[in-house]
Amino acid sequence: MSGHVTERQPITIVIDAMGGDHAPEEVVAAACALSLEAPGDHAAGSKSTSGKSSGDKHATEKPDERRDGSEPLHLLLVGDAPRLHGLLMKQRYDAERIAIHHASQVITMDESPREALEQKPDSSIAVAARLCAEGRASALVSAGNTGAAVLSCLQHWKRLPGIRRCALAAVYPTEVRRGEKDDPFSLILDVGATLDVTAEDLVSFAVMGSAYASRISKNPRPKVALLSNGAEAGKGPKEVVAAHAQLRQLRGIHFIGNVEGVDIPRGVADVVVCSGFVGNVVLKMLEGVSETVVRLAHYAYKEKLMWRAGLAMLSGGIGKLKDLTDWKQYGGAPLLGFDHLLIKAHGRSQAQAIQNAIKVAKKGISSGLLVEMERGLREAEALRTKTEEGNQ
Amino acid sequence: MSGHVTERQPITIVIDAMGGDHAPEEVVAAACALSLEAPGDHAAGSKSTSGKSSGDKHATEKPDERRDGSEPLHLLLVGDAPRLHGLLMKQRYDAERIAIHHASQVITMDESPREALEQKPDSSIAVAARLCAEGRASALVSAGNTGAAVLSCLQHWKRLPGIRRCALAAVYPTEVRRGEKDDPFSLILDVGATLDVTAEDLVSFAVMGSAYASRISKNPRPKVALLSNGAEAGKGPKEVVAAHAQLRQLRGIHFIGNVEGVDIPRGVADVVVCSGFVGNVVLKMLEGVSETVVRLAHYAYKEKLMWRAGLAMLSGGIGKLKDLTDWKQYGGAPLLGFDHLLIKAHGRSQAQAIQNAIKVAKKGISSGLLVEMERGLREAEALRTKTEEGNQ
Repeated sequence: MSGHVTERQPITIVIDAMGGDHAPEEVVAAACALSLEAPGDHAAGSKSTSGKSSGDKHATEKPDERRDGSEPLHLLLVGDAPRLHGLLMKQRYDAERIAIHHASQVITMDESPREALEQKPDSSIAVAARLCAEGRASALVSAGNTGAAVLSCLQHWKRLPGIRRCALAAVYPTEVRRGEKDDPFSLILDVGATLDVTAEDLVSFAVMGSAYASRISKNPRPKVALLSNGAEAGKGPKEVVAAHAQLRQLRGIHFIGNVEGVDIPRGVADVVVCSGFVGNVVLKMLEGVSETVVRLAHYAYKEKLMWRAGLAMLSGGIGKLKDLTDWKQYGGAPLLGFDHLLIKAHGRSQAQAIQNAIKVAKKGISSGLLVEMERGLREAEALRTKTEEGNQ
Repeated sequence: MSGHVTERQPITIVIDAMGGDHAPEEVVAAACALSLEAPGDHAAGSKSTSGKSSGDKHATEKPDERRDGSEPLHLLLVGDAPRLHGLLMKQRYDAERIAIHHASQVITMDESPREALEQKPDSSIAVAARLCAEGRASALVSAGNTGAAVLSCLQHWKRLPGIRRCALAAVYPTEVRRGEKDDPFSLILDVGATLDVTAEDLVSFAVMGSAYASRISKNPRPKVALLSNGAEAGKGPKEVVAAHAQLRQLRGIHFIGNVEGVDIPRGVADVVVCSGFVGNVVLKMLEGVSETVVRLAHYAYKEKLMWRAGLAMLSGGIGKLKDLTDWKQYGGAPLLGFDHLLIKAHGRSQAQAIQNAIKVAKKGISSGLLVEMERGLREAEALRTKTEEGNQ
């Protein structure tokens, strides 16, 4: 990583090189490929180091600064240094853009997160989260154990002002397209980081989800909705009803009210806000959706020859439908609510998916996502204070 | 209705004749058709009356008695008596099986339930619920306003012992078939009657859902699961974790543990237990499932000619897939937790769907569903008392 502050300050992203089913090989391959293709020139005067860099002097990353996207990208690979070096030796990469930071332990996909983190303080994910907290990087990318990644951030990162609980967000495909890039995805949060939520949590998720959609999907005014059991303002558990009342007064986001289950696949909202428990159930249902319909179709129409033929002709595509409904293919799930950004790539990610996750992380930082979230959260907080004073 | 107790006591079901988009015409048509086709001989010595019967002497219905399914069926139509009489006049029916009870008011589909019930104490649904409570009938069928139907039962019916909150259950189609009749449906509850639940509520829903599946689908040992965000016993909000611990100890039901969102369409469990809020979201997502996949398929494959052709061939079937995923087509949703049974048919129900709902109601009563639920609830209660004593 760069030891000098340059005119165009590089963005450093720390990578949990040992996390995921195909780690560290595919992770290193992704880093190498990105080091060669990343946009922008290399920062003049930057100096490459590889090997342990924990003692290096370094420029402190400021994750809350808005940049223009053409900053050089620096990657800090965390994991078994000799092994990572060995992998780097085998391929082409830009040595000025990749550094290695040693971590002696690894948390596997099936370990219980809490116990694993207690027993392995030097695990790659814990070390990676600490490096961010120390200002060495703006964002973290991991394809490892999701629970361990979220817990590491919880243990080492600061929450944004006004945030009580964090949210893991996920994208899922819809027919409706949105934003500058015609994204066919909606964002849903939380999908599992915070199972039980208060009205204030839901409001902060709405604010953060809106900021994420506007920055990452370049959708300038994303439609934000609360998931409930009816469209009316009074529908839902008390925290949803209370959040609805608060969201209606926020000017910084485009709140369209409540949506119901049937509106999720339709893509009525760009950002769907719910508790982590509900979001997890919804997301997993979406993952199984194509599988289900094939089964239903077989059941309903097994005796109708033309439908059978149609189904057979579609069957080649049905497998790919599953990929389409697999949100994990698309850059990974952001963890929102902290002063740094975690992009959690799917455990099965190969080099291309990891590259996507790193690009999303960079885009989040260079587009000023964290600043935007802070702005929205301040507005929500101010509104709450005003309402409380009004009630006294 | 019968004024004499006979050897084979008839089952009386009260029908909200004014509820639903096609009421009262389709409701009366359903009653007339059923009066002619219902199984079993007419009870000897029964006497038919039509018109207002509120002053009649009548045999008190005992909903908790197990019968053999061949009991005569008596239907008590509640609503605008002159109008109902007029409709009866126009068709064939068995006058010994149908009676009319006047109610001067009607609650429409889009009225707010609470206010409507306050303003219309003589609405057909409120009167129908009261007639059950007075022992005039064992079960109630309505295709009207769901909220008003549930609230009427809440206001007039007694809860079964051990029940704090009631549950509305729904069936949805799965590939897996189950029970004596090879039913391709799973049951999910609650789907909206109780938005927030305690562990005890979830346990009672599991017991009642199991009883319903065993009696109505004739599935002697239905697999009951809790919906959570992971398969492990410790996954989920605290009420789900606590319910899991209690359900593992219940011998009366076949508890298979937690299922996740992806397991819902798969049909892994015969009975899926969750809060009314989560169940409502899940059910509405299932309703939109075929619509979504068609959209996704168009998006993904619009340039592939063969897939297009396949989709076109399927398109005739796709509309019917929507029917298949429409749980409301299948006899309606039972409201469980009371000393009587409500079957809530869909608002769009026509005569055939209303007939199905009435048949399910009769089957519930004749199969001893309420007795079975009480038995299970007693076991759950005893277990809870034992555990509490053990903890002291």
